[in-house]
Amino acid sequence: MSKITLTALAQTLPSTVPFVGPETQERTLGEKFKARLGANESLFGPSPKAILAMEQAAADIWQYGDPENYDLRNALAQHHGIDPAHIIIGEGIDGLLSYLVRLLVDPGTPIVTSHGAYPTFNFHAVGYGGILHTVPYKNDHEDPQALITKVSEVGAKLVYFANPDNPMGTWHTANTVQGLMDNIPHEALRVLDEAYVEMAPKGTAPPLNPETENVIRMRTFSKAYGMAGARVGYAIGPKELIKSFDKVRNHFGVSRISQIGALAALADLEHLANVQKQVSDSRNRLHQIAHENDLSTLPSAANFISIDCGKDGNFARKVLENLVANSVFIRMSTIAPMDRCIRVSCGDTEAIHAFEKALPIALQAAASS
Amino acid sequence: MSKITLTALAQTLPSTVPFVGPETQERTLGEKFKARLGANESLFGPSPKAILAMEQAAADIWQYGDPENYDLRNALAQHHGIDPAHIIIGEGIDGLLSYLVRLLVDPGTPIVTSHGAYPTFNFHAVGYGGILHTVPYKNDHEDPQALITKVSEVGAKLVYFANPDNPMGTWHTANTVQGLMDNIPHEALRVLDEAYVEMAPKGTAPPLNPETENVIRMRTFSKAYGMAGARVGYAIGPKELIKSFDKVRNHFGVSRISQIGALAALADLEHLANVQKQVSDSRNRLHQIAHENDLSTLPSAANFISIDCGKDGNFARKVLENLVANSVFIRMSTIAPMDRCIRVSCGDTEAIHAFEKALPIALQAAASS
Repeated sequence: MSKITLTALAQTLPSTVPFVGPETQERTLGEKFKARLGANESLFGPSPKAILAMEQAAADIWQYGDPENYDLRNALAQHHGIDPAHIIIGEGIDGLLSYLVRLLVDPGTPIVTSHGAYPTFNFHAVGYGGILHTVPYKNDHEDPQALITKVSEVGAKLVYFANPDNPMGTWHTANTVQGLMDNIPHEALRVLDEAYVEMAPKGTAPPLNPETENVIRMRTFSKAYGMAGARVGYAIGPKELIKSFDKVRNHFGVSRISQIGALAALADLEHLANVQKQVSDSRNRLHQIAHENDLSTLPSAANFISIDCGKDGNFARKVLENLVANSVFIRMSTIAPMDRCIRVSCGDTEAIHAFEKALPIALQAAASS
Repeated sequence: MSKITLTALAQTLPSTVPFVGPETQERTLGEKFKARLGANESLFGPSPKAILAMEQAAADIWQYGDPENYDLRNALAQHHGIDPAHIIIGEGIDGLLSYLVRLLVDPGTPIVTSHGAYPTFNFHAVGYGGILHTVPYKNDHEDPQALITKVSEVGAKLVYFANPDNPMGTWHTANTVQGLMDNIPHEALRVLDEAYVEMAPKGTAPPLNPETENVIRMRTFSKAYGMAGARVGYAIGPKELIKSFDKVRNHFGVSRISQIGALAALADLEHLANVQKQVSDSRNRLHQIAHENDLSTLPSAANFISIDCGKDGNFARKVLENLVANSVFIRMSTIAPMDRCIRVSCGDTEAIHAFEKALPIALQAAASS
């Protein structure tokens, strides 16, 4: 071919996948993972009603999905007690973050996040030429005061904050989050990623005031609702900002089956309550397993926990590599000092048992290598 | 809220949906369309094997899809007899067009297309600040010579060409398309949209030479494969360009169920052959219905035909409005003189019968209004 010249910005971007999928690792291993505990998927599955709705929708897949996502959007509005004009649905939080950054970020736009927070936000921020300014975690928590200070210092246009946090699982109370929202200079749009909030204690999410504050909140069907593969997320924000997603989004981008499945999942409050209980039980069991191996853990409000391997990042990476080699898929932070921890998703009895068996072996292997 | 300032470019973009969905019209009508013939969906449905595969995949939707789309990508490579490194899979051709434009277009970049060609390409081209230069259709066909001339004249970086064409259904032979590819100045990347090519006569698609030419070809599971709602498209192009999609794409964007469904659909050659036959029969029947109403039609190599309503755009729009009001969903070009035609998708007996009944009524209503 003759030379195809990418934009100057695109030339600077790496051709990478922010997260290597477990399937890639399985192809290397030559077998399926016994325990898929690395992507904070919900091993407790989606609502049986959502499964049934998706099965029944399969034959109608010849039809495009509704580009307005009308039914799901209205059901979400009712669920949250807000006007549907405050809600935009997209291809997972990842897709929505991409659209949001595209709407707001020019090359050179200052953006603030925490060093070690969600990489896909960074992928999009840098992908549109934004300049990332980061503050360190404080005691394995995102640090609201440092974020406020940094936003002021660099005149950020966007600030990203996840509560509960991924990859650590730690969280702040609604009061603290509200204080963060209130005290950030008002020019900066707050991106509050609440992907895991349904699994956090009551009192973690501040009340929804979608019009009055400079905040866009991200929610998803990928975690508590157990539909990661469906790619359905939504954002709640001021009407004018929400409307502006129509300027750039892939209007037909959400699968028809996914829309129908998410609608059924949202209506099944009993299943959600059941998942919340199972996540809580599984977290407790993971804490226990860690303690049985003389390891400490971080408190978690998400469907995973961070286990402190007790040494440095190199040691934790060896533990992780050994777990993966023994068919237990997990992930971990790449940023010190959080990289002393491995991150293990909640799971069903079988998966957790596989982890329980593999962990002491991995710890021993890491110690003796 | 305080003022949220979009980028200068985003401020110039309209908050529109390029295609209003039939569901929106159904909500206005207060009923489901009797005949859904406006979006060139395949009323003949997906392969039963794809339906079964998707049904069986529903319960596993708690897992993210493979971000590399490895299995589908390799099956497509085998299907086409090319290296998988020449193929990128995305959220429909719409999603892939968005990524492609983002990789190549800066504000002010000149882009060439035909006046009245696929609006979603224009949506993305303008959405990234590209300057659209258009050439008119010639006898209801895209005009290769005019495209070549315009690319040279404006120094275009991208040129869009669909074969078969949407919205008209007309097409050029592989020889003509190859001539277009060969004679465009070599700096311009050719985007050859072949969404409908599986339903065109043999000899419509030029041979695949993915590395040697400056062309990226777009294919989809939305049309002949009957999976519009699944959002699976793919592009075939030079390895370096294909690899660069990893710089910007939503890596987990393709639904897990969709990947699995598309894989099964691709393998069912018998179903595809059956659809090709039904499309051909349905086209013939639509031509016949038009002729019975003293209307002429354009030849079509796609799963729809253009019916010339015999007068101007205002008349055709009245015909369309009356059909829609009578529960027959169709669409039409908005650009003269192509807007003298209505565009009607192929369909099953029931849908075509509904159209057959409604057409003379709509023609009479339009004539007497």
